Amino acid sequence: MSPAAAAAKPILYSYFRSSCSWRVRIALALKGISYDLVPVNLVKDGGQQFSAEFKALNPMQQVPALKIDGITLSQSLAIIHYLEETRPNPRLLPQDPKKRAQVRMIADHIVSGIQPLQGQNALVHNSQSKKSLVSFSIEFPMPHSTVPPLLTALEQILQHTAGRYCVGNEVSMADLCLAPQVANAERFKVDMGPYPTITRINKALLELEAFKVSHPSRQPDTPAELRA
Amino acid sequence: MSPAAAAAKPILYSYFRSSCSWRVRIALALKGISYDLVPVNLVKDGGQQFSAEFKALNPMQQVPALKIDGITLSQSLAIIHYLEETRPNPRLLPQDPKKRAQVRMIADHIVSGIQPLQGQNALVHNSQSKKSLVSFSIEFPMPHSTVPPLLTALEQILQHTAGRYCVGNEVSMADLCLAPQVANAERFKVDMGPYPTITRINKALLELEAFKVSHPSRQPDTPAELRA
Repeated sequence: MSPAAAAAKPILYSYFRSSCSWRVRIALALKGISYDLVPVNLVKDGGQQFSAEFKALNPMQQVPALKIDGITLSQSLAIIHYLEETRPNPRLLPQDPKKRAQVRMIADHIVSGIQPLQGQNALVHNSQSKKSLVSFSIEFPMPHSTVPPLLTALEQILQHTAGRYCVGNEVSMADLCLAPQVANAERFKVDMGPYPTITRINKALLELEAFKVSHPSRQPDTPAELRA
Repeated sequence: MSPAAAAAKPILYSYFRSSCSWRVRIALALKGISYDLVPVNLVKDGGQQFSAEFKALNPMQQVPALKIDGITLSQSLAIIHYLEETRPNPRLLPQDPKKRAQVRMIADHIVSGIQPLQGQNALVHNSQSKKSLVSFSIEFPMPHSTVPPLLTALEQILQHTAGRYCVGNEVSMADLCLAPQVANAERFKVDMGPYPTITRINKALLELEAFKVSHPSRQPDTPAELRA
């Protein structure tokens, strides 16, 4: 890597509403890493992530992608792990391996369990286009049938692990996944009544400056009508 | 934790065909960790993972779950990370942070991108039962329409990162995700022709003893007609 690449400001490719993008925005804010943001609209033009230009940058054709230290990373948890290993302060993983495991269990549960069922990332072929972006909520009634059981499991786990935040009293990778997922659930009008621990933690998180500045309602690409 | 708990042999709750379970079985085999296996049949009795007994063990109601060092872990990558941090030899993550990021990108791409679309873990309510296990292949034609684009992305990434294995010449967490996913794709009759790098790496992996002993065709709960 050239010294110029190492010194360059990181560039985050992000969509205001993407929960995966928000996770990384929170990590960058918590660690005080300044960056430039390039919006990638997942809906406009049939999905700007499918453009040849973006595909060259990230073959996974997903946001977020982060150009940093001369490389381009994708997958939110992989990005956050990289930031954690190269910019360890403040830490987003506890020191104790068992607590680290709890953090990762919760994060993975959200990312690979809840998110793909709820997110906007399902690529489905259709007759009009080789690639079209179809929300699962259109395809079949996932959010109301499947997300609650997954949230129920999360609520039970958090009853054992939580302090002020998901695991104890330090903000961790798990919290970076929780707040965006609650925002998604609320957008899909999931009744959060049965999940008091999730709701309490989410409220505490949204009071933190890093969660505020990174919020979907305050991004450069947030449409005027959705701005906070 | 009591000394007895620390010294106890780990117990893996596993289903022979579950790709997530296989990932963990490979990690345990590579690291030479001896364990007892308790089969959890995801299909029989409406899914044994939904039993009260298993739910008490793992509220996520998923395999794999691993009882180890006095705690119970779930989520395959969280389990593998825990093993890596507590039993570091042989390592499943490279030392260089950028290479570690590549490994995690590939693993996360498979786990949160391909696997949930292809796996047997979709919980869908239906009129007969509060919880029923429905393969996405029944629900809508995911494997043939969606998995190939995700494999295409993986193939492109591997062309940049691979040596003998997914990232360079050392077996990593990414490889633990690759082989089970290829097995799933083959089970769904996905044409692997367009993915020569994936196919080559998979072949190299299946030659390793740790991948052989952990293979779905050689588990205590493998039905006789599927045994190798």
